[in-house]
Amino acid sequence: QIDSARLWGSIHETAQFGATAKGGVKRLTLSSEDKQVRDWFRKACEEAGLEVHTDALGSQFGLRKGRDMSKLPVGIGSHLDTQPTGGKYDGILGTLGALEVIRTLNDAGIETEAPICVVNWTNEEGSRFAPAMMASAAYVGDFTTDDILSRKDIEGTTVGQALDSIGYRGDKPVGFQKLGCFVELHIEQGPILEAEGKTIGVVDSGQGVLWYDGKISGFESHAGSTPMPLRRDALATLSEIVLAMEAIARKHGPNAVGTIGEAVIANPSRNVIPGEIAFTMDCRSADGAIMDALDRDLRAAIAEIAARRKVDVKIDLVWRKPPTHFDPKLIAAVENAAKTLGYSSRRITSGAGHDACNLNTVMPAAMVFVPCKDGISHNELEDATQPDCAAGTNVLMHTVLAIAGV
Amino acid sequence: QIDSARLWGSIHETAQFGATAKGGVKRLTLSSEDKQVRDWFRKACEEAGLEVHTDALGSQFGLRKGRDMSKLPVGIGSHLDTQPTGGKYDGILGTLGALEVIRTLNDAGIETEAPICVVNWTNEEGSRFAPAMMASAAYVGDFTTDDILSRKDIEGTTVGQALDSIGYRGDKPVGFQKLGCFVELHIEQGPILEAEGKTIGVVDSGQGVLWYDGKISGFESHAGSTPMPLRRDALATLSEIVLAMEAIARKHGPNAVGTIGEAVIANPSRNVIPGEIAFTMDCRSADGAIMDALDRDLRAAIAEIAARRKVDVKIDLVWRKPPTHFDPKLIAAVENAAKTLGYSSRRITSGAGHDACNLNTVMPAAMVFVPCKDGISHNELEDATQPDCAAGTNVLMHTVLAIAGV
Ligand SMILES: NC(=O)NCCC(=O)O
Ligand SMILES: NC(=O)NCCC(=O)O
Repeated sequence: QIDSARLWGSIHETAQFGATAKGGVKRLTLSSEDKQVRDWFRKACEEAGLEVHTDALGSQFGLRKGRDMSKLPVGIGSHLDTQPTGGKYDGILGTLGALEVIRTLNDAGIETEAPICVVNWTNEEGSRFAPAMMASAAYVGDFTTDDILSRKDIEGTTVGQALDSIGYRGDKPVGFQKLGCFVELHIEQGPILEAEGKTIGVVDSGQGVLWYDGKISGFESHAGSTPMPLRRDALATLSEIVLAMEAIARKHGPNAVGTIGEAVIANPSRNVIPGEIAFTMDCRSADGAIMDALDRDLRAAIAEIAARRKVDVKIDLVWRKPPTHFDPKLIAAVENAAKTLGYSSRRITSGAGHDACNLNTVMPAAMVFVPCKDGISHNELEDATQPDCAAGTNVLMHTVLAIAGV
Repeated sequence: QIDSARLWGSIHETAQFGATAKGGVKRLTLSSEDKQVRDWFRKACEEAGLEVHTDALGSQFGLRKGRDMSKLPVGIGSHLDTQPTGGKYDGILGTLGALEVIRTLNDAGIETEAPICVVNWTNEEGSRFAPAMMASAAYVGDFTTDDILSRKDIEGTTVGQALDSIGYRGDKPVGFQKLGCFVELHIEQGPILEAEGKTIGVVDSGQGVLWYDGKISGFESHAGSTPMPLRRDALATLSEIVLAMEAIARKHGPNAVGTIGEAVIANPSRNVIPGEIAFTMDCRSADGAIMDALDRDLRAAIAEIAARRKVDVKIDLVWRKPPTHFDPKLIAAVENAAKTLGYSSRRITSGAGHDACNLNTVMPAAMVFVPCKDGISHNELEDATQPDCAAGTNVLMHTVLAIAGV
């Protein structure tokens, strides 16, 4: 059994780095707050006896030796970055839970056969730089390191510049730390476990993701003197796109969602009809055929709206992550650990993307979910209970012990 | 006859202050570019023999003596500030046209009975500080000087601070310069004169304006894991409001327009459902009863949308300017001047607000319109011809001579 109070203490101690007035955390990747939590995490890993290295994209790897160093390590961990309106648990539970597993094994004097590697992946959230789960995507070879280093945030700062500015461009090449498998603990970020009164979600699959950048070019003109029928209003166009996206996701539901999270009017003014808007789109489904249908329906709807309103709409697919099907043996190991420990559980699909989904494309991977209050995440009010966090960490530990061998 | 080439030269010389790449002008009120054009204007007025004073809100007044100084001056002028995506003529033609009238009278050695006062009103556009036509509204007593001085732009800078930062908080109290009447020359900013091949618009009325500040409070949540039916999406709510406003304006059309020009998502992120949006609304009609109907329909539509989507929408009416009916005698004077000079003309309603609309509430006022290309304004592509600008300035001069007496 892990030390529930120590885990809870770590979560709340690190929540000070980027704490918001509403009780959440704003710790965008590679920000000064992210540097603070990374420094804390490195020190804690070193104090737990891990050998810590940082790769060229800033991901932190803390290795605990096994009896048989010819075996590949069991990877565990998650991320410590948050959304602009983030909470105290998303990513953090999985990373500090992994640290807690190491501390517990140390205290109990347990040696494992295979080594264990604790990981803090850079930019899982994807809100400062696209795509999300950026560093783990580079780790599995979906993108080159140079490509990722050149990605820009909205201010034009590159990932490379941001890494240098906080001193976290590591000296190890991406992929230096080989892993044999990966297990990630996370809050559910959805309402199912709580509604069904289950403690553990045994994640067997994950939704695929489509991310688009969009740009609408209408025509700026005077709000008072331009008759309604002559307008080429970029915001009215966006409004139709937002509602079309909502209708399309509902049509393909319940196994589909669609969101426009960002929309910026260029040179806005109260008495100017908006002429230009940049926006993003996020569509998901756990079913690849539905993902294709979402893409097709969305493009058709946008083309119709643009033609009718005589505006130009450009859509650029910047990321496509297919649905994930986790490794059957690891899924069974998680399920078994929950059972052995006496926690109620159910199989579940992840609505969110996770680093484990990337790792799953090149090695066996699986995930452990615990409930979060009202299913709320990406919100400062995100909440989870201490017993649930401890239960998830126990399941993580017992899964790791089963895989790594005692 | 005024000097067409000299007028054209002034317009294009001052267009350098805030010139944009697309050939327009970005000269927000009380910005450093606004200071440049104000310095130019003061010097030009002084060189034309005017006695120049600045009031506590930065409006510039250049007085040309008349034979009978017991008579109140005839006010002429407009504004030199622009929209963020503004053109070279909106406001500028009326201000530099007024200067051109003075220069022409000087060259011809014409003295008038009543004095003439050239005015550059501060913040006519209203895009940095609300309301539009701010300084002329204070001049006629719609707002106190202190109230206006405390208005803030989006960065939190007050009008007072902005005035001080460019050294244009004048030493004269608002209203120090009494005027007997006011005549403003302007581009039409709409398509009618051009379409009908008329050179002069004799403006007899102006639309009323409603300005609102709005705020939507939904709930931020995860774009991937929040099912469509559970969302309280602030952007989807805004989208319905935008389309409702469009439908309401069309329903009350053709004598009504409605625009949402600004909308800012708080803490935007690609994979977060927007939780909070601040936005503005602009509704207009030349008919007071239709203005009331617009307000009523809009509030009802917003209440229905907010209740159905379980989000909170706050609407705050920040400005209400009733429709304008210009002074019949001055309207006749403008019409007569156009006729005498042999220009084609028609009566017209102004779709935009103007300082003359404010002055009309306390003194006789009127306006002269000239065509602009395709009716385009509040756009960097705004355009007008040299002969039309000269024609309008001639009509302005002959109107002034008729009122001031030679
Ligand atoms: N787990 C999580 O919130 N990941 C962020 C990436 C995404 O799914 O949008
Ligand atoms: N003339 C003009 O564009 N005025 C700006 C104020 C408004 O009508 O919105």
